Amino acid sequence: MAERDSIKIQDVARRAGVSISTVSNALNGRPERMRSDTLARIETAIADLGYRPNQAARQLKTGHTPIIGLLVPSIANPAFGRLAREVEIVAQERYGYRLLLGNTYRSLEKEASFVEDLLSHGVRGVIIASSLANRDHFESATARGLVVVSHDGRAPAGHAPQIDYVSMDNGKAASLATQHLIDHGHTALVFASASGRTISRAEKIEGFLATARAAGLERSALVVERKARSAFGDSELSELGRAIAEEIAARKVRPTGIVALNDMLAIGIVSGLRDAGIAIPDDVSVVGMDDLFLSALVSPAISSVRPPVPEMAALMVERIVARLADSATPAAEFIFQPTLVMRQTVASRPASSRSTRRAK
Amino acid sequence: MAERDSIKIQDVARRAGVSISTVSNALNGRPERMRSDTLARIETAIADLGYRPNQAARQLKTGHTPIIGLLVPSIANPAFGRLAREVEIVAQERYGYRLLLGNTYRSLEKEASFVEDLLSHGVRGVIIASSLANRDHFESATARGLVVVSHDGRAPAGHAPQIDYVSMDNGKAASLATQHLIDHGHTALVFASASGRTISRAEKIEGFLATARAAGLERSALVVERKARSAFGDSELSELGRAIAEEIAARKVRPTGIVALNDMLAIGIVSGLRDAGIAIPDDVSVVGMDDLFLSALVSPAISSVRPPVPEMAALMVERIVARLADSATPAAEFIFQPTLVMRQTVASRPASSRSTRRAK
Repeated sequence: MAERDSIKIQDVARRAGVSISTVSNALNGRPERMRSDTLARIETAIADLGYRPNQAARQLKTGHTPIIGLLVPSIANPAFGRLAREVEIVAQERYGYRLLLGNTYRSLEKEASFVEDLLSHGVRGVIIASSLANRDHFESATARGLVVVSHDGRAPAGHAPQIDYVSMDNGKAASLATQHLIDHGHTALVFASASGRTISRAEKIEGFLATARAAGLERSALVVERKARSAFGDSELSELGRAIAEEIAARKVRPTGIVALNDMLAIGIVSGLRDAGIAIPDDVSVVGMDDLFLSALVSPAISSVRPPVPEMAALMVERIVARLADSATPAAEFIFQPTLVMRQTVASRPASSRSTRRAK
Repeated sequence: MAERDSIKIQDVARRAGVSISTVSNALNGRPERMRSDTLARIETAIADLGYRPNQAARQLKTGHTPIIGLLVPSIANPAFGRLAREVEIVAQERYGYRLLLGNTYRSLEKEASFVEDLLSHGVRGVIIASSLANRDHFESATARGLVVVSHDGRAPAGHAPQIDYVSMDNGKAASLATQHLIDHGHTALVFASASGRTISRAEKIEGFLATARAAGLERSALVVERKARSAFGDSELSELGRAIAEEIAARKVRPTGIVALNDMLAIGIVSGLRDAGIAIPDDVSVVGMDDLFLSALVSPAISSVRPPVPEMAALMVERIVARLADSATPAAEFIFQPTLVMRQTVASRPASSRSTRRAK
C-alpha cells in the first residue's frame, strides 16, 4: 500500500513520456487536448503504476470534495457531541463523506471564517447548528456555492426557503414540557433560559407562553433569562442553571414549576435548588429539553423532551448529498416532532405552596 | 465576495491569453516552464480579477492541506468532546488549521479507513486518541507520510519512538486514586473497568495493583472488568458502571473502595449503588478518573483525577505543526502529571465494614 501510494503524477508523466500538464488534462476530463494515442499511453501508465489520483486532484475536477462541514457552538456540550456522532455515522457509513468540525461559541465572525475555509478546502455542504437569529450569512454562503442545512433554525415566513431547515418543533417541545407541569397542578411557572436569542430559544419561549396563556396562567408565567458569566466553557450552561436556581431559591414567593431551555441548564437548576435546601420534585418540579443521556444518570433523573436526533441527522446528510448531486432540488423545511420523557423531577404541586400567584 | 470567489483558473487563463496548464504551472511553483513576460501577464490577470487559488490547488503544491485529523472512539463521550474542543481551539486560533473528525468505536478497520481518507484529502497530521494496544497501524500511517500523535498511547520500550506520544501518566492517575482510598482506611479495593485492554487501561490497572501491593493489600485488591452489552452508544460506559454496581451490591462481602477507569463509569457505579440502597460515600467510596465537568454536577459530586487537557491538546497540535514544517524533528514521548480532585464520594472506611478481606 505504502509503495502504491507514493506514486505521483510525475511518475505517470515520466512513464508515459508526456508532461505533467498533459497527465493533469487527462485526469481532469480534458482529453480533447491530446491525441488519442497520448491518452492511451497515460492510461496504460496509470494502470501499470497503480497510480491513484488524490482527492485534491479529483476535487479540481468535480468542484467539491467528499467532506461535510459541521458547525456547532461547542463540541464540549454533550448535545452537540451527540449530534456530531450521529451526523458522522450517516455521512461516513452511508455516503463515504468525512466531517470537518468547527466550534463557533456563537460568534458570527467564527461562523464566517469557517465558511471561508470550507470553500477554500473545496467543501460544498455544511450543517450549521449554531446560528444566531441573523440569517444574512446563510444567504452569503449559499450565494458562494455552499449547500447549507440549518439545524434548529427556521425558514423565514412568507417565501420559499433558500436553504434547508431541519429542526425539532421547538415550540411544541416547550409546550409539552409546560403542559406536563400544568397537568400536575402547577400554576406558578418559570421558563429558565440563557440570554442571547437564537431562533430555537425564541420558539421555545413562545411555546411556553402560549401554553400558559391557554391555561389562563399568563399572569403567573415568567421568563427568566440570564447571561452566562464565564466564557463558553464545558460547564457554562449548568453553572448558569445553578445561578438561576440561587435566584429562584432566594425569592419570597417561588414558582413550583420550571421549564428549562435544555437539559444542561436543567441539571444545573436541579443541582442549585438542592444545594439551597429545596427538594426536587417535592417542592419544585423541573422539566428539561434535549433528553441527554446524562439526564437519566443524575439524581433525581431529569424529565425531558426528546428530539429524534438520529432521524434528523440522517435527513440533514441526505439533503446535502441530494442537493450536491442535483442543484435543482428545491430547498425545504423539515420539522420533527418531540416526545415527552417522564423521569423523576416532576410531581404534583405541593399542597402547602403559597406561590400560586406571582407577587405583585 | 460572491463575485470574486466565482473567478476560476479558466478566467485567469483567458485574460492572460495562456492555457490553463500554464496558469497552473505559475501557481504551483514551476515558473521556469514559461517566459518571464508570460508569468508577468498571469500575475497581472490574477491581480486584476482578484483570483484566489483554492486549498486544493495549494495542496497540490505543498503536499498538505491545513487540516488536522482527530480520531476518537466516540465524540458523544464528553471526555472526547472536551478534547476535540481544546484541540480545535489551538489548531484554529493559533495555526489556522481545521479539524477533520472521525469516530472509530475502537475498530481498527475504521481507524485504517480514516487514515486512508486523510491521505487522499491531503491531510498530513493526525491525532489518534482511540487506539487499541496494537501499534502496527501507526507505523503504516507514518510510512505513508502522516505525522501521527498518539494520545493516551505509550512509546514502545527500548527504542526511540517513531511517532509522538502525548498522554497523562495513567499509572500515576490510578495510583493517586488508589492511595486516596487507602489513606481513608479502605483495604478491600476494586478497580472497575471496561474489558478491551487499551494501553491506558493496562497502565491504570498496573498503577492500581502496584499501589495496593505497596500497602500490603494485594490479597484484597481486585480488578473487575466487564464487557459492555450494547454497541458503542452515548451511555455505554455509564450503563456498564451500573451493571458493575449491581454485581458489587449483590456480593456478600463487598469492597468499600472503588477506583473507576474513568468518570463516566464512576457516574454509573455511583448511580447503580444508590439504586441498590448503598450509601455513597458512607458505605462505599468511589474515585473516578478524567475530571469531567459532569462529575461536579452529579450528586454526590464525584472525586476524580484531573488530566491537564488544555496543555496536552496544545502540545499535540504544536507537535504536528512543528513536525510538518521540519520532518527531521525527532519524535518524542510526553507524559503529563495528573492531579487529585476531592469532592463528595470518598469517606473513611465504615467502622461496621466486615469486608476488609476478600472472601476465599
